[in-house]
Amino acid sequence: MSASKESYAARIQRKVMKKQYLVDVAMGRRKADLVLKNATYVNVFSNELCQGDIAVAKGQIVGMGNYDGEQEIDVSGKIVCPGFIDAHIHLESSLAAPKEFARAVVPHGTTTVITDPHEITNVMGTDGIDYMLQATEGLPIDVRFMLPSCVPATPLDEAGANLDYRAIDSFYDHGRVQGLAEMMNFPGVMGGDKEVLEKIIAAQAHHKKIDGHAPGIEGKDLAAYVAVGVYSDHECSDTEDAMRKIRNGQFIMVRDGTAARNLEGLVDLLKQPYYDRCMFCTDDKHPSDLLEKGHIDYIIKKAIGYGVDPIVAVKVASHNTARYFALNNRGAIAPGYLADFAIIDNFENFNVEMVFKKGIMTCKNGEVQPFEAPVIEGYLDERAHDTFHVAHLSAKDFHDERPRGVIGLVAGEIISTDNGYATEIDLEKDILKIAVIERHKNTGHIGLGYIQGYGLKTGAVATSISHDSHNIIVVGTNEEDMAFAVNRIVENRGGITVVDGGKVLGDVVLEIAGLMTDDDLVTINDKLENAKEQAFELGVARGIDPFMTLSFMSLPVIPTLRLTTRGVIDVIKQQYV
Amino acid sequence: MSASKESYAARIQRKVMKKQYLVDVAMGRRKADLVLKNATYVNVFSNELCQGDIAVAKGQIVGMGNYDGEQEIDVSGKIVCPGFIDAHIHLESSLAAPKEFARAVVPHGTTTVITDPHEITNVMGTDGIDYMLQATEGLPIDVRFMLPSCVPATPLDEAGANLDYRAIDSFYDHGRVQGLAEMMNFPGVMGGDKEVLEKIIAAQAHHKKIDGHAPGIEGKDLAAYVAVGVYSDHECSDTEDAMRKIRNGQFIMVRDGTAARNLEGLVDLLKQPYYDRCMFCTDDKHPSDLLEKGHIDYIIKKAIGYGVDPIVAVKVASHNTARYFALNNRGAIAPGYLADFAIIDNFENFNVEMVFKKGIMTCKNGEVQPFEAPVIEGYLDERAHDTFHVAHLSAKDFHDERPRGVIGLVAGEIISTDNGYATEIDLEKDILKIAVIERHKNTGHIGLGYIQGYGLKTGAVATSISHDSHNIIVVGTNEEDMAFAVNRIVENRGGITVVDGGKVLGDVVLEIAGLMTDDDLVTINDKLENAKEQAFELGVARGIDPFMTLSFMSLPVIPTLRLTTRGVIDVIKQQYV
Repeated sequence: MSASKESYAARIQRKVMKKQYLVDVAMGRRKADLVLKNATYVNVFSNELCQGDIAVAKGQIVGMGNYDGEQEIDVSGKIVCPGFIDAHIHLESSLAAPKEFARAVVPHGTTTVITDPHEITNVMGTDGIDYMLQATEGLPIDVRFMLPSCVPATPLDEAGANLDYRAIDSFYDHGRVQGLAEMMNFPGVMGGDKEVLEKIIAAQAHHKKIDGHAPGIEGKDLAAYVAVGVYSDHECSDTEDAMRKIRNGQFIMVRDGTAARNLEGLVDLLKQPYYDRCMFCTDDKHPSDLLEKGHIDYIIKKAIGYGVDPIVAVKVASHNTARYFALNNRGAIAPGYLADFAIIDNFENFNVEMVFKKGIMTCKNGEVQPFEAPVIEGYLDERAHDTFHVAHLSAKDFHDERPRGVIGLVAGEIISTDNGYATEIDLEKDILKIAVIERHKNTGHIGLGYIQGYGLKTGAVATSISHDSHNIIVVGTNEEDMAFAVNRIVENRGGITVVDGGKVLGDVVLEIAGLMTDDDLVTINDKLENAKEQAFELGVARGIDPFMTLSFMSLPVIPTLRLTTRGVIDVIKQQYV
Repeated sequence: MSASKESYAARIQRKVMKKQYLVDVAMGRRKADLVLKNATYVNVFSNELCQGDIAVAKGQIVGMGNYDGEQEIDVSGKIVCPGFIDAHIHLESSLAAPKEFARAVVPHGTTTVITDPHEITNVMGTDGIDYMLQATEGLPIDVRFMLPSCVPATPLDEAGANLDYRAIDSFYDHGRVQGLAEMMNFPGVMGGDKEVLEKIIAAQAHHKKIDGHAPGIEGKDLAAYVAVGVYSDHECSDTEDAMRKIRNGQFIMVRDGTAARNLEGLVDLLKQPYYDRCMFCTDDKHPSDLLEKGHIDYIIKKAIGYGVDPIVAVKVASHNTARYFALNNRGAIAPGYLADFAIIDNFENFNVEMVFKKGIMTCKNGEVQPFEAPVIEGYLDERAHDTFHVAHLSAKDFHDERPRGVIGLVAGEIISTDNGYATEIDLEKDILKIAVIERHKNTGHIGLGYIQGYGLKTGAVATSISHDSHNIIVVGTNEEDMAFAVNRIVENRGGITVVDGGKVLGDVVLEIAGLMTDDDLVTINDKLENAKEQAFELGVARGIDPFMTLSFMSLPVIPTLRLTTRGVIDVIKQQYV
């Protein structure tokens, strides 16, 4: 019987039966479904390690003490932690479909992630949210959503969609939607922008949380930002910034992911009484980073290494996040809480040995238990695999005789410099041609410019991951290869490609919205590393990431020069050059 | 225009206008409605005193820093605290109508109370909840409700109503209802009682909190009680009991009221990292206690006296409670929070000098600003003033020749002893007659028994406050005065009376459900003190409270002997004697 056909009274009676079962197990009148025998566990309420059997029934913890179970697992000598929670991530950053992301993070003790499907929504609009909701149903991690607040990220972007508050409103009724994701348009808040405020008010009308994104704001700017209802920030890189926000009532998501690593700068917060205002998040995690370092477990381990009390580190990674998001039945080991566990060897090594989600073992010694892939409805699946609407291009589409701005790369940074003008490719001076091709609506818009410092000596490199609108971005030493690379990506329905002389040297196919693939993470990483190596062999400077660097070249909020589908823009002056 | 006629879109647009106003004030583009200049204020997030002007617009704090306002109040040298919150009280215990209760607690910095209208609901059923909701609308304190979970308190009681989950269900939709009040039927939980579990499940279905009441339970009993979803307890009197509950995930309401004073026994909790799991509550506050000692301010002051960090004490009294009840816009001084302030001289004296509710001054130097009394609809008002349905009684209604149990009083305690049997009043042995008269439904039920240790030498004492069913209870030296006293209470539509030889010596009229009056608290207290003095002069032992002692005589959950409308009962054996 479908739940929606159930009357309120029938629902209450059904739950009475369940509760009576839980009471019987808690009282010891009936065996538990599962008992973790002789557990040493992290008690996030009393801030201590406690001892006892942990009894589980129907996916919930029902008691700690002496219990018998249908299944009993002796966990003597290990430490049972509440499952770990990532407070803010864009799942798309892993390049893996959610089921493969789950397979990659479960061994690290992750049981819940809060994702903002910002990337796919910029491509597919609200279909992107629906796609991700369906693609995360029933996974061995619980994926919760914050609705993208800024699609497109700026009015300068040509994204696949343009969403106002009405477009996302009905998603708040979905059981796995927790609120409105990072409101990065903080100047809009300060200016009293109507569309921005509408989105915030609608989230509040649904009693949902609103995450922030506002590096370094302070004083009256910060007051206005918090006063309208932005509850958190994940952009702090030093304690001064974080303390200003804490004093104003915001929660701090201490971010340590692939692109930004702020734990070291913020670790002192976790040694103060206000650590209860902190959570951990990654924001983005690229394949190699996930495979080599881990996930939230890696942040906890690092924090302990910096001298943070291990109990506090675990609490920040579980309980604090759950409480912030009002996920009140997780993030602790106590009766009534979900039986989500990360069982580690000890605080020093912090090796995750077993993982449980709602009382089901999902991983043992790194081996993920098999699970069924979610079923995505036909329309959405087709839609996700058909997001490139670009006519076949030829070299002349990239030909241009007018002077264009030269974007100067800075090794190891995502900011760029203004390197003046150029009228043609000049390999001697490392001046290459760069283009952004609108790919959502077949508008034919192509923005052209030049880039200096990338190092490519022959061929072209292109990617369909280009923040935040995910048009196709290509850099080349000649226009033929640029056209060839872009056509190749369109044929592949998305991804990354490295070409030379009309030959494909390396490819990462990202057939889901041009952002993700169904491949497993190891395969993705192998392909990515191969493509990267090919790019280096074509001359790309080894100090820079050939693809990530390009991915940020079209984001017109990072100084100094960027390239959009309309041309090179001076971000500071907000003017095309 | 009524809010219910407003479309969702119109509501969003109206709120956009309001938010733009708030942003303008926060940004300093427009003067604040009110500025507390040069404030030193308690920052509950960073656990410190901060400095700055506090700007208020439309009842909310919008920023701290340098601000100008239409109204400016210099608060140099004082300390601004978030308004105080009582986490659990039965407002009826003050004997005052809610408006007079408010007038009494506002000078103590109280801005929010969470009430359980358990007493009036036992008399009036759900009309009692409606009455209290209406009687608290628009007061200078925000009164929030937990719905009574146990009406009647036990199946042995003859109350004015018998409420299952369906009866209270629609009240969860009211904007000021926060959850289900103290689930005192903890044996029912452990036994898997269907009616008890239904009430808990219904509260959860509405995403509401469930408060507990379970002194001393531990082990599997506690596990079962917490596993079903009981989030808090206010019955702890020592840290061992409290720590067991904290470890199991419950929040602790540290109670310090009139009948139970647990702060001293629990104060160590407030010196530990888990003080964030604690709140303050009073449970009940009698008139003299409110007038002489104060309210939550008195508990804070006492806690500081016991060595608790003043910042922590204030936080426990405001922020922790607000967060527990998901009243997320109060309990802190930060942008977006309600402008609810208690401004004190200093932490040592802790004199509340000014109080603000939503940016409006409600009290200055003890003087409460005038406010309009709430309007209660005719039907409910009449219903509240007509709750006695008892035929006129005469001495023969109290006459009885069979032996009846003798309830032995213990000075200073609410427990009683089993003093055997008696067949008649014996003033030499201080054996008096006691009776409980069913008064809700004119059933004619009168329970008779004897009481020893009360001390009355002549006349009779009666009250309509008798927990939890609030039938009339009377003690007398002769049957004529007993009948006279009961008839007097019925004529008065409720209250307390002291009579002798057919003359009324002292009266407290409680015309609202037999529990409260519209008089102000000073008047109530004067009348109560006079009646008490009269009772002492008639011989009542000065070591006991003549009325409160009687009020607990008919509560058949406190050992050893009690009297119900059906006779004397042995509470331990749960048998009539």
